[in-house]
Amino acid sequence: MAENLRIALAGLGTVGAGVLRLLAENSEVIANRAGRAIEVVAVSARDRAKDRGVDLSPYAWEDDMTVLAARDDIDVVVELVGGSDGPALTLARKSLASGKGLVTANKAMVAHHGLELAKLAEGNGAPLRYEAAVAGGIPVIKGLAEGAAANRIERIYGILNGTCNYILSEMETTGRDFSDVLADAQALGYAEADPTFDIEGVDAAHKLSILASIAYGTELDFAAVDTSGISRIRAADISQARDLGYVIRLIGLSDCTDKDGTRHLFQRVAPYLVPVKHPLAAVDGPTNAVVAEGNHVGRLLFQGAGAGDGPTASAVVADLVDIARGSSMAPFSQPVDTLQSSTPADPGDRRNRAYVRFTVADRPGVLAEITAAMRDAGVSIESMIQHGQPDDSGDEPVLVAIVTHEGPESGVAKALELLEGSASLVEEPLVMRLIG
Amino acid sequence: MAENLRIALAGLGTVGAGVLRLLAENSEVIANRAGRAIEVVAVSARDRAKDRGVDLSPYAWEDDMTVLAARDDIDVVVELVGGSDGPALTLARKSLASGKGLVTANKAMVAHHGLELAKLAEGNGAPLRYEAAVAGGIPVIKGLAEGAAANRIERIYGILNGTCNYILSEMETTGRDFSDVLADAQALGYAEADPTFDIEGVDAAHKLSILASIAYGTELDFAAVDTSGISRIRAADISQARDLGYVIRLIGLSDCTDKDGTRHLFQRVAPYLVPVKHPLAAVDGPTNAVVAEGNHVGRLLFQGAGAGDGPTASAVVADLVDIARGSSMAPFSQPVDTLQSSTPADPGDRRNRAYVRFTVADRPGVLAEITAAMRDAGVSIESMIQHGQPDDSGDEPVLVAIVTHEGPESGVAKALELLEGSASLVEEPLVMRLIG
Repeated sequence: MAENLRIALAGLGTVGAGVLRLLAENSEVIANRAGRAIEVVAVSARDRAKDRGVDLSPYAWEDDMTVLAARDDIDVVVELVGGSDGPALTLARKSLASGKGLVTANKAMVAHHGLELAKLAEGNGAPLRYEAAVAGGIPVIKGLAEGAAANRIERIYGILNGTCNYILSEMETTGRDFSDVLADAQALGYAEADPTFDIEGVDAAHKLSILASIAYGTELDFAAVDTSGISRIRAADISQARDLGYVIRLIGLSDCTDKDGTRHLFQRVAPYLVPVKHPLAAVDGPTNAVVAEGNHVGRLLFQGAGAGDGPTASAVVADLVDIARGSSMAPFSQPVDTLQSSTPADPGDRRNRAYVRFTVADRPGVLAEITAAMRDAGVSIESMIQHGQPDDSGDEPVLVAIVTHEGPESGVAKALELLEGSASLVEEPLVMRLIG
Repeated sequence: MAENLRIALAGLGTVGAGVLRLLAENSEVIANRAGRAIEVVAVSARDRAKDRGVDLSPYAWEDDMTVLAARDDIDVVVELVGGSDGPALTLARKSLASGKGLVTANKAMVAHHGLELAKLAEGNGAPLRYEAAVAGGIPVIKGLAEGAAANRIERIYGILNGTCNYILSEMETTGRDFSDVLADAQALGYAEADPTFDIEGVDAAHKLSILASIAYGTELDFAAVDTSGISRIRAADISQARDLGYVIRLIGLSDCTDKDGTRHLFQRVAPYLVPVKHPLAAVDGPTNAVVAEGNHVGRLLFQGAGAGDGPTASAVVADLVDIARGSSMAPFSQPVDTLQSSTPADPGDRRNRAYVRFTVADRPGVLAEITAAMRDAGVSIESMIQHGQPDDSGDEPVLVAIVTHEGPESGVAKALELLEGSASLVEEPLVMRLIG
């Protein structure tokens, strides 16, 4: 058997501790498959004394994690610190610059600095892998970059954030409202103390931009992801969707079309209505799932645990096994200088059906105002639901939900523009598109 | 860019022609990802003159496919001829022996001769890949051998035969009987003229034995797969299953447990009752799906097209891209001399619920006879369905379906033993287990 693959671990939170546990527990199968043992040489974290349930005494300790990049007894640095910049980025840069491999679970860093890091990796002949950054334990980057490598990928979409999916499926099952379920999710550890990145779709947008780059061979463009979250969804939206035969899921969706020699990249994270019979409708709790459509393979679905120490550690160590086996694939499947630039696609041309929910003052004429705006914008209404208030005093705002026939997104946008500033609307309308 | 990867293609049926089309259509993305172009140098098939809708003039032609292995202008031979032995095996042996890579979609050959071929490949430093042999376009071998490489795999199960799944879902939707739907499937090209390998579970067993070897690091043992097919399933079984909240799917299922220092390998292909809410119940038509459960990653699901020229070609070319990228993974994920031997697990100890359908003469005492046998074998009955014949002359046999409580498989086996030779039974009882 060849020499050990010697690694250093930066960050010993739940995932870091999970990696140590996994490497210890599965050392034999891993060595068989990797062709050599994976040996942890050094670790670094903020607090050496903290009890993590794993014995750190076999490993060298570094107070300053960036020193790991300078040690000459290390082949690969595993970065599990998080944060798009700061020490994680410094460590990543230094590791690759010194020719060390880098494995990271840091989606924010890859989404923001992936191209720079890939250049550094390729220039220094150092492997860079980040399977754990997208969809936890699911080997979806491998599935796209290798499994579907023969295809022109035409579309990818999926459930990329376990926290949102947990909250939405809880709301669905219990009928409770968003803030209520979020508080529970925080108490249970399914949502962070500051849940903004998750519930506003930023985390999913990080992941989507990474998948899009690999799928289409385009340069990462996180800034162009049209991102919205789930915090405005109410129990009433979910029950109305159900009446229509749909569930609500936070979906990351992307496609890429060539027009006049330019690549038009569409990237959106938003809550969508998904037909109950669609494979993504059955994905509940913190599970993730990604669909990729290739021009020869057709539709592929990858599904599994999107977070958690075990699944994430599984993806981190799969990357290490790949490196131990000598894989030399480019970090973004093809050399970074062959990635193409793209322009954000105009969403206005996209045709779909939309669910538009208005919160309106309960008074005469409101429905006429809304339907007139729809008509003037050329939007054709398929159905309309208004549940009156039990109390008909007119004091409480009322929800009105409209489902449109298929049409360009520009139509709905124009209708909402016409309604802007209307005294009838108590809050900004919520628009969700229908999938499938 | 490096030198072209030069390949030869043996077999120009629908998949072979599909590979040529895919390589032509996606040449640019493939070259970007592979780091070099994939160039078809030579081809071979039975009939040169046959119109396949692709222009063969750019390629050298060999009447004798085994000559491809001797050409020194070829790096990888792609075998798409089929058949576990015969010319396919000769070509595979010769190619690997001469140090050429081999890519094949031939599940029968891999299931029967995979270890021998892997030894040959490893001994000659030649890559051997067969992603297309299992589950068509789904990168499930990659998912297991690489994506889940950090895990001890505890169980794999899935839908591995598109023909059976098409027939079962058609029976489900239309209420028609097996032979009826099979005839249609043959007319539509979903089933072969001689459908035995598909409908009797042999094709799925080939695939299951390959997956099991990769998942558990055990030697291939196709002969030990407990195999049954779908030809005895009736429309009445499907409607009774539905009444119970289940659909019927042909499932390949395998697990591996260590006992007294021996690895006990369970491998079965059989129709199972799957709860309608289970992800595999939603898999209909010719789609395939595989679930793998790892000790850290949890449950992974891979789903996609299980057959067809496009998906299969996609998997073949993904293997070529891997080889072009320089991947040197062992054919069975780990060196063939580290694979462990196993003994077939005794199914008698397995606990599950079972659906047992009897075809009985319509006369007094039959139910008493069946229920007494169940009692004497210690099998506890959960429910029993008997739909009487509209015609109560007693001439027509009647179906009696029993669902048992959870218990060891040996119990049901013993009950059926007690009933063996009974004049009340018109045909052998059909046993299907419940999953989930």
